[in-house]
Amino acid sequence: MCAYQSFEDQFTWSAEEKRAARRVFDLAYQRQCAAILEKVKQMTTSATPTPSDVWEIHDYLSDQRKKVDKTFDYRYSVLLTVFSKLLSDGWLTDADLSGLQADKIEAIKRWTSL
Amino acid sequence: MCAYQSFEDQFTWSAEEKRAARRVFDLAYQRQCAAILEKVKQMTTSATPTPSDVWEIHDYLSDQRKKVDKTFDYRYSVLLTVFSKLLSDGWLTDADLSGLQADKIEAIKRWTSL
Repeated sequence: MCAYQSFEDQFTWSAEEKRAARRVFDLAYQRQCAAILEKVKQMTTSATPTPSDVWEIHDYLSDQRKKVDKTFDYRYSVLLTVFSKLLSDGWLTDADLSGLQADKIEAIKRWTSL
Repeated sequence: MCAYQSFEDQFTWSAEEKRAARRVFDLAYQRQCAAILEKVKQMTTSATPTPSDVWEIHDYLSDQRKKVDKTFDYRYSVLLTVFSKLLSDGWLTDADLSGLQADKIEAIKRWTSL
């Protein structure tokens, strides 16, 4: 039995708050996907039909997929730091967090300011 | 010392013919890249900003890159079969091969018809 408990493990999540968290998570994910899609559209518009230009689009998507997969981790044990990073990177605003309890919002903002 | 000699190893390539082969190779590569780029443009136009649509573009490019890397092999020991496949797949026409010697064109067309 592991006695270690992270700071985030101390928070409890009600069913209603879990639904709110899922909405926040999906909202940020969709915003990031929209930005990636927009960038790919721009790249296809300016690209020439050469291997270097076409594979540059592939390289960009590979890089973004790795970053997104690393960031969007929906475990409650890490979710507050995920939201903190998304807030810090501009994929979420303070208003998006309104469905969460005050102690969680406070923790998210504290980590964002570090 | 390896005594094995493939059918293609029996062909010799003059400097002029090597230049012609390079042009043929690059032409087919550019045509295939243009087709991939066009398909990606279509996908970005119809895509929604969701992970499934965005990563579908990435999956498509990953798949195409593997196929292209496998096909476009510029070694003289395999180049005639490469041209044969490109002719068969529609990335080259008979007219594109005009800079090559008759015996090579004959071999390419024979393999294409198999």
